[in-house]
Amino acid sequence: MELIYLNTVWIVIAAAMVLFMEGGFSLLEAGLVRTKNAVNITMKVFVDLTIGALAFWLIGFGIMFGEDAFGFIGTSLFGTPSNIELGLALPNEAFILFQTGFAVACISIISGAVAERMNFKAYIITAALITLIVYPLSGHWVWSENGWLAQLGMLDFAGSSVIHGMGGFAALAMAWVLGPRRGRFNSDGSANVFAPSNIPLASAGTFILWFGWFGFNAGSTLDASDGSLALIALNTMMAAASGGSVALLLTMFKYQKADPSMTINGVLSGLVAITAGCAFVDTWSAILIGAIGGGIVVYGTLLIDGLKIDDPVGAVSVHGLNGVFGTIAVGLFHTNAGLFTTGSFSLLGVQVLGALTIAGWGLVGGLAIAKVAQMLVGLRASAREEEEGLDMAYHGIPAYNELERFADIPSSLYDFQETTGITVAQSNQKKEVVNQ
Amino acid sequence: MELIYLNTVWIVIAAAMVLFMEGGFSLLEAGLVRTKNAVNITMKVFVDLTIGALAFWLIGFGIMFGEDAFGFIGTSLFGTPSNIELGLALPNEAFILFQTGFAVACISIISGAVAERMNFKAYIITAALITLIVYPLSGHWVWSENGWLAQLGMLDFAGSSVIHGMGGFAALAMAWVLGPRRGRFNSDGSANVFAPSNIPLASAGTFILWFGWFGFNAGSTLDASDGSLALIALNTMMAAASGGSVALLLTMFKYQKADPSMTINGVLSGLVAITAGCAFVDTWSAILIGAIGGGIVVYGTLLIDGLKIDDPVGAVSVHGLNGVFGTIAVGLFHTNAGLFTTGSFSLLGVQVLGALTIAGWGLVGGLAIAKVAQMLVGLRASAREEEEGLDMAYHGIPAYNELERFADIPSSLYDFQETTGITVAQSNQKKEVVNQ
Amino acid sequence: MELIYLNTVWIVIAAAMVLFMEGGFSLLEAGLVRTKNAVNITMKVFVDLTIGALAFWLIGFGIMFGEDAFGFIGTSLFGTPSNIELGLALPNEAFILFQTGFAVACISIISGAVAERMNFKAYIITAALITLIVYPLSGHWVWSENGWLAQLGMLDFAGSSVIHGMGGFAALAMAWVLGPRRGRFNSDGSANVFAPSNIPLASAGTFILWFGWFGFNAGSTLDASDGSLALIALNTMMAAASGGSVALLLTMFKYQKADPSMTINGVLSGLVAITAGCAFVDTWSAILIGAIGGGIVVYGTLLIDGLKIDDPVGAVSVHGLNGVFGTIAVGLFHTNAGLFTTGSFSLLGVQVLGALTIAGWGLVGGLAIAKVAQMLVGLRASAREEEEGLDMAYHGIPAYNELERFADIPSSLYDFQETTGITVAQSNQKKEVVNQ
Repeated sequence: MELIYLNTVWIVIAAAMVLFMEGGFSLLEAGLVRTKNAVNITMKVFVDLTIGALAFWLIGFGIMFGEDAFGFIGTSLFGTPSNIELGLALPNEAFILFQTGFAVACISIISGAVAERMNFKAYIITAALITLIVYPLSGHWVWSENGWLAQLGMLDFAGSSVIHGMGGFAALAMAWVLGPRRGRFNSDGSANVFAPSNIPLASAGTFILWFGWFGFNAGSTLDASDGSLALIALNTMMAAASGGSVALLLTMFKYQKADPSMTINGVLSGLVAITAGCAFVDTWSAILIGAIGGGIVVYGTLLIDGLKIDDPVGAVSVHGLNGVFGTIAVGLFHTNAGLFTTGSFSLLGVQVLGALTIAGWGLVGGLAIAKVAQMLVGLRASAREEEEGLDMAYHGIPAYNELERFADIPSSLYDFQETTGITVAQSNQKKEVVNQ
Repeated sequence: MELIYLNTVWIVIAAAMVLFMEGGFSLLEAGLVRTKNAVNITMKVFVDLTIGALAFWLIGFGIMFGEDAFGFIGTSLFGTPSNIELGLALPNEAFILFQTGFAVACISIISGAVAERMNFKAYIITAALITLIVYPLSGHWVWSENGWLAQLGMLDFAGSSVIHGMGGFAALAMAWVLGPRRGRFNSDGSANVFAPSNIPLASAGTFILWFGWFGFNAGSTLDASDGSLALIALNTMMAAASGGSVALLLTMFKYQKADPSMTINGVLSGLVAITAGCAFVDTWSAILIGAIGGGIVVYGTLLIDGLKIDDPVGAVSVHGLNGVFGTIAVGLFHTNAGLFTTGSFSLLGVQVLGALTIAGWGLVGGLAIAKVAQMLVGLRASAREEEEGLDMAYHGIPAYNELERFADIPSSLYDFQETTGITVAQSNQKKEVVNQ
Repeated sequence: MELIYLNTVWIVIAAAMVLFMEGGFSLLEAGLVRTKNAVNITMKVFVDLTIGALAFWLIGFGIMFGEDAFGFIGTSLFGTPSNIELGLALPNEAFILFQTGFAVACISIISGAVAERMNFKAYIITAALITLIVYPLSGHWVWSENGWLAQLGMLDFAGSSVIHGMGGFAALAMAWVLGPRRGRFNSDGSANVFAPSNIPLASAGTFILWFGWFGFNAGSTLDASDGSLALIALNTMMAAASGGSVALLLTMFKYQKADPSMTINGVLSGLVAITAGCAFVDTWSAILIGAIGGGIVVYGTLLIDGLKIDDPVGAVSVHGLNGVFGTIAVGLFHTNAGLFTTGSFSLLGVQVLGALTIAGWGLVGGLAIAKVAQMLVGLRASAREEEEGLDMAYHGIPAYNELERFADIPSSLYDFQETTGITVAQSNQKKEVVNQ
């Protein structure tokens, strides 16, 4: 039996797991934001998986993996022709599908940080620009064999920097330009936290992300005969466990409450932090990397709050800070080339350079996208839309209609065929009148 | 290493993914119906997965894959003996499990269209009859090598017609016989849309279905050495992406609201439409097929509404119309035999014949089941049961008891051991009294 | 191609599926308890997956699979060194990851039975002690080749006793020591049932568990060339289907309501019951075993209630009673050695001895843990914490904040940085004041 048959099955399953992570993002983010914006953030994930996936397939893949120019950009393979030669023991289509999952994940990182206040059309533009050019460009630098960071020897196995660092810092830039949600910061400088709307859903999203991450990291072998495949999976698990443990225990002792959002973000931080090094470090190091990630997210969230940047789901701390940390950690813990294991600074230097460069590119890319979206359609929802909630403003329907059973009126809330007439919002008003 | 080991692992995983799609149906349908019927529709999925699976195992499998009689029906293999010879590079048990997942999916298509008004016992009869005879019979025509449509050369790789077209038109017949939900259509002929009760859950269900569809379509290779396996997976992804894109953008520009239910149904329509051709068309064609599917569901929903047929989740448009379209699309886009690629009408004719025949059989089967169920137990819930909600009427419990925390009374809502005494409904009344 | 490559992929995927079952436990238990404790039970699952996984990796694995002493305990491999020799056609890391998923599942069984009234710190201690010593010890007896029950010939393929029987009876002991939830039993001896808070979520959890169970049982082959792999998967499916069918039909005819919680527990009971024998019995037997499991859970729940032991999710009946039954069923239905198939009592005797011994050890372990936790931090939540709900008491946040959209005040419910000041609870009070 040929190895390529096994590789095909392995990567198709891994890609399905990575794409299923979008379901995780959807539930996580819908659970962490306020109810009135839960539909909107879910719809953003649909944008990622539909428009984002098509944009990456059409253009992004070529920029990322096409023929290299100056170590900087790919220049061929647009529309991803099937007869290309990528030098993999894998059908091209499996590789393209897997990479599509990665590109889509990168956008979904941003969607959380800009939640509850962004113009929906601006988000569509954001998703397209990220997958068309911003993500593929820096992706080319590290993951195309002729990319300039690849040539320097930067190691980022499954994307602590390429996906998470870039996405997290683009998220930071956009959250900063967008400004905070109304009422998020008080005039005296203190911050209000808007309580998550649905903890069981947010947790379910986390478990889906955790499941998908095994495909994400171990699938990045692209080859079932890679001897580190099982180690990668174990390291992924243990870093998540230690990240979650630290965040859970830290909030329990620091705030006398074991905080669900922080525990969730601690797990995700452990996962992000180990993503670059999962194939290169032993399990003790993975546990330590995850644990540090769990600490970073607890204090990073306070830092971002202190900067008066409003990141509703903690995406900057989880993905941005831990993406940078995880990339640098490879330079510290790499079994054969890390500072702590060999005393050599050589790899560490490259990792620091790469992590900071890509984070910086994320910032630049995020600012540029914000500028473009601002010019084309306006970046921010109106104050009225934000107050009403983006669900009603952009999608005409609330997330949950569970209260209807307490009302006596028929629940025919809106007439889809007459959208200019009675809307759900108006029906709700009528309902309240009836109830009074 | 022998190929059969890989095939076994591949098809067991693919079957698990297909069976997991039931969780997707459950959340999708529970989220799209009104709260008072969310338990009932969830219980229908349990009926599919339990009674439906057993019925298919006992009888249906033999009718579908047993020894052929007249190209029309299988006549052996009842009780699925393990020592049968199916000519696959796969253990029989893996094939049986995979086919069970397909049969179960077929029923779940119907459950959405008959939601919120059907007698629960009639649904159990429906599930049994579909898996015992209706689905296996037309399945035999296409997927048994001696079936008459298979002999004609009909191509339906993973079941646009066999599963979705048949199921969707059986759903149409049953929704028509059942009649609309109370209050769904006004006396002046206009339609009310009952708002979905839980968009985040419906979306989560969609992501699960999307995940499972990779097992559904790529698993239909039944063989990891099938060179089109990766192409199938990529085509599946891209058709879903284009179907969702079209529905999202169309509702955004047509109604000024990017509609979540339509976006969900656009994704599912892309998936249904590509299911027949995923192994036979290139990715550009897959994107086009998915996009047309997304358009079909938007206008198909208006058409079904216009016919005064009440399909609460849009199952007829998603599965019925797109199942037929996807089957015909093979005749248009097949790489080596399609009308658009070769100019030949030959395959197209067979596809049209097959798609319409199976849709017609779905209509007949649905009408026959409705007749049988009507005679045995009555087809429709009583007006009072429908008004109260099927959850309380058939299952004695509401979907969500989240409001209890606003009440001061103990939440001991019902005594399971004394079902003839205090029920949840009565407790709720008491609760309201206490609250006033 | 070498078999080990396939085995690696297979077991990494199976392990991911088993670990994903925690998401299933989370949703199942959050849906079955009352809303005010839904966050707490979700956080327990995070404890299982984080602290539990680390504890097993550090100590438990060595006790379970380390060098045997007296057939009783493992004495090496602590900290799971990577260069160990386990004699598997599999990388050690894949085996360790898979076993971690099993250990974590064992704790999650207990979390349901002690729901809604346990001190959260006591639960952390419970999770650690189960994974450090209680589960690995009896696991060693059966699954280490030198364990005394393994030497006697006890067969427990994927853990009806090792995981479920042990966990279920430890759960029984702890639920008994903890005492019932306030208001659960009336002074006249009758029982109140607290209605599950969220049936769609509980069902979604069940579908995730069902999906993961294919990895759990079929993955226990540890080897893709195991000829029974596909049979295991099919038997798993059919036992779940028959267990669910029996519970659904039984409640429908016994109580005139097809009960969702019982149907869920019927499915899970079928799965637990077939776990020991899935590789050893034919599919007809699997269906019968599952069906008996479905009956056991309906009457077992009444029995546990009658003993005035409060098991909020039915974990004792599902896992404890069916774990014992499933283990004994191997002695009855084993294709080559069962009483019913061969007339021999030999295997049956060993199975009965093993099942009862391990259940007894579960009881002893549960009592010991309760004692330790009582001494260290106190076992039970205070009456006030229980009344308020564990979510607010231990985690400072309710599960669902969906009602905020009906209020006019900003939803800045709590200030994370000033936890000693305004809490969510206080904010809620203010909210109510504003609303009045």
